[in-house]
Amino acid sequence: MESLEVEAGESSKSVEVLNQLWEALSELKADRSSLLVNVGGGVITDLGGFLASTYMRGIDFINFPTSLLAQVDASVGGKTGINLGHSKNRIGLFQEPLFTGIWNFFLESLSQVERLSGFAEMLKHGLVSDKNHWQELCDFSVLSEHPNSALIQKSVEIKSEIVKSDFRELGLRKILNFGHSIGHAYESLSLEKDIPLPHGFAIAHGMMAEAILSSKYLGLPEKDMNEIVFQMQSKFPEIPFDYEADELMDFIKGDKKNIEGKLNFSLLSSMGKAEFNVLVEEEDVINVLQFMKSNA
Amino acid sequence: MESLEVEAGESSKSVEVLNQLWEALSELKADRSSLLVNVGGGVITDLGGFLASTYMRGIDFINFPTSLLAQVDASVGGKTGINLGHSKNRIGLFQEPLFTGIWNFFLESLSQVERLSGFAEMLKHGLVSDKNHWQELCDFSVLSEHPNSALIQKSVEIKSEIVKSDFRELGLRKILNFGHSIGHAYESLSLEKDIPLPHGFAIAHGMMAEAILSSKYLGLPEKDMNEIVFQMQSKFPEIPFDYEADELMDFIKGDKKNIEGKLNFSLLSSMGKAEFNVLVEEEDVINVLQFMKSNA
Repeated sequence: MESLEVEAGESSKSVEVLNQLWEALSELKADRSSLLVNVGGGVITDLGGFLASTYMRGIDFINFPTSLLAQVDASVGGKTGINLGHSKNRIGLFQEPLFTGIWNFFLESLSQVERLSGFAEMLKHGLVSDKNHWQELCDFSVLSEHPNSALIQKSVEIKSEIVKSDFRELGLRKILNFGHSIGHAYESLSLEKDIPLPHGFAIAHGMMAEAILSSKYLGLPEKDMNEIVFQMQSKFPEIPFDYEADELMDFIKGDKKNIEGKLNFSLLSSMGKAEFNVLVEEEDVINVLQFMKSNA
Repeated sequence: MESLEVEAGESSKSVEVLNQLWEALSELKADRSSLLVNVGGGVITDLGGFLASTYMRGIDFINFPTSLLAQVDASVGGKTGINLGHSKNRIGLFQEPLFTGIWNFFLESLSQVERLSGFAEMLKHGLVSDKNHWQELCDFSVLSEHPNSALIQKSVEIKSEIVKSDFRELGLRKILNFGHSIGHAYESLSLEKDIPLPHGFAIAHGMMAEAILSSKYLGLPEKDMNEIVFQMQSKFPEIPFDYEADELMDFIKGDKKNIEGKLNFSLLSSMGKAEFNVLVEEEDVINVLQFMKSNA
């Protein structure tokens, strides 16, 4: 049993750190019968999953996610990978761990910020697929306590169900990208500006913006749109840096989900129901981003 | 249509070049609908296959192998990857291309050295699985002309058949590693000494050494062992640098195929028949390596 540690934070999901870990496994003479145990947040499960899946053409790995975000999102569904510069998850693979252990007691070690960051993805699971889950999460006082096992389990179930039907994200799984086309742009820009946003905070802002687009493109009722914006604003802080809509657009245009240069979003048609492959006009995105900025 | 070029030679199968290519795809805004077309020898099909399979969690790729080695070996069977330092294919994946195009006319561009290098793998296909193929190859004047389509097709068929039954190399596919436990060590050492051996030359020496071990471990008849050594010696040049058996052992002990520190070889029980997971004593390997060295 040998242990490898990496620096906390998104910057460890890099080619350099990956290369160091490849070298470390090689020096420790890890072989095809070795098992990699990933203990940590989403950075560790993403990075460790990719590391294991590419070392000697793939060794087994198991995940013990320690953050709420990793428990309900990163470690469910087999996405592994690293960032390329500021492009999130540009390099990676679909590969499931042998086993994922979710232990509630890890959550006691989390700050409110970390808890909220994971909570954003739980809210998303409700929005795209289960109105009741959304409602029970809105009723939950996440600012003062961490979610119980029942809430976490429900959120994991929703995601697992969606992933099971479309592991390689050729169709339905794309609905899990709601909030992420714009959310990832906030996140990438925050890295570039050296004021890193927690993933969930970026996604919360992405969900607000994409709820507004949902109203225009899929007829999401105005009162639902307003409720989403209200819930996000009451739980998540404002974007803590100045930016121009154009800076976000550069990242949005480079999104993995786009096909042949067309902006490809997943949006809501109603509370608990999402559609994927919605082609969105650049101009509409710019308008929403400018609106968000002026109303922050 | 954009084109990317890499330097010829094994040294391009590196983390550095891989990273440059990941960046290049990203800068060219390759997306999930992009297709990577690999045109080149085994370095290109190995590297390009891994590049495509990890970019955005996998884009499609097709191979046009231009060397005999890539046509009969590297591009058949979905092994992709890069080297880590001097450890061959330490990092990689199993991923099949959408399509492989084998065009005989590419062979006209090859030197005798390149032709021979590929021929070694064809000989191996005969040795591990088809005595008739071995015989027809021995009868062929490879020093003066390149193999015809029928010979190449036969060799590809043998390998494809084996791979089909065991894509992830959990069992039978391992017989294709005959000659490679020791062959890769010659190859890695040659890189370290900066006198790179063509892959097939290293494997030919590996097959000689492993034929001798086959005689000890699986009762390969002595006349067959002698014929293998004779054929290899008559076709392939000697190892062009000084070395100690111990230097080779370091690489052999780090081989991917070893399990929990035991040396795991694929050896011949007769001409055209191989066994895998043969556990071999270090001492026997050292003896054979010393014998090979003194009889070079």
